[in-house]
Amino acid sequence: YTPYPGSCSSANDSMWTFFTDVAGQDGEVDAEELQKCLTESGISGSYSPFSLETCRIMIAMLDRDNTGKMGFNEFKELWAAINAWKQNFLNTDQDRSGSVEHHEFSQAIAIMGYRLSPQTLNAIVQRYSKNGRIFFDDYVACCVKLRALTDFFRRRDHLQQGSVNFMYEDFLQGTMKI
Amino acid sequence: YTPYPGSCSSANDSMWTFFTDVAGQDGEVDAEELQKCLTESGISGSYSPFSLETCRIMIAMLDRDNTGKMGFNEFKELWAAINAWKQNFLNTDQDRSGSVEHHEFSQAIAIMGYRLSPQTLNAIVQRYSKNGRIFFDDYVACCVKLRALTDFFRRRDHLQQGSVNFMYEDFLQGTMKI
Ligand SMILES: [Ca+2]
Ligand SMILES: [Ca+2]
Ligand SMILES: [Ca+2]
Repeated sequence: YTPYPGSCSSANDSMWTFFTDVAGQDGEVDAEELQKCLTESGISGSYSPFSLETCRIMIAMLDRDNTGKMGFNEFKELWAAINAWKQNFLNTDQDRSGSVEHHEFSQAIAIMGYRLSPQTLNAIVQRYSKNGRIFFDDYVACCVKLRALTDFFRRRDHLQQGSVNFMYEDFLQGTMKI
Repeated sequence: YTPYPGSCSSANDSMWTFFTDVAGQDGEVDAEELQKCLTESGISGSYSPFSLETCRIMIAMLDRDNTGKMGFNEFKELWAAINAWKQNFLNTDQDRSGSVEHHEFSQAIAIMGYRLSPQTLNAIVQRYSKNGRIFFDDYVACCVKLRALTDFFRRRDHLQQGSVNFMYEDFLQGTMKI
């Protein structure tokens, strides 16, 4: 035991302190708390801070028990994921315009392993871009949604045939929360 | 012809003037322009203004040609829809708490004609509420998504059996834009 905060503590211990600060009394992190801590931590760098909507989507991605909140392990997982997306965004923005344009997005999506038609790519870019540019916040929201919807589809595509028979309520439960 | 703005003009003419103001040079209204004009018009009343995300969802609902922008007819349609949702929200918020709670939401959804299980209702309320309260902006986003996803599903449910076989890309195109 030392009286100095942070001394002798592993990265995991600092993360725990950070988490308990953010989580507050209920010991879990909801979308508002996540947005506040992401903004204060400066993790977006020079990019715009994350919108509340993107924070909700990020939580929905990891929230296996459907509480809308994250415990410590989910929080750590998300933190690592955000850093990975930031690196991914930097790599994708090859012309350093500060945003991802259509051709950069197509390449990035292919590298992530998706095989999408030009029509699907157009629909996605149109939805997540402003004047043809996808900014960091929307890029992350888009990648998270694409991954979450693909995971949801894949879990039901038992024969891996690229087609799934959905019942209405199951379809709604999977898509409304993302 | 009269020199007085608005005089002798029908409601449709004023709407057209308003629309051209909002649309700017390209003659179409995108999500940013919509958010700006909704905020300035005060259509949300004492409720929080619409988020950019909700504006995008509202446009996606009406945007049949997939441009992410609205022409005059879509704009008029949306304007009417927003006024209807505002009235609907007021009716739904029976205890005048300024927000829609779980039991109020369940009733409203049933009145709209949806038959959803408690599990699906819980998942939706959890996603669109803050501390158990659904506010106007999220309520509209939620109702629009529910309607758009249901329409998307129904258009493919040719036999009206409540089950649909989706191909992966078709599934993505329908769900990513909403
Ligand atoms: Ca908390
Ligand atoms: Ca770029
Ligand atoms: Ca209420």
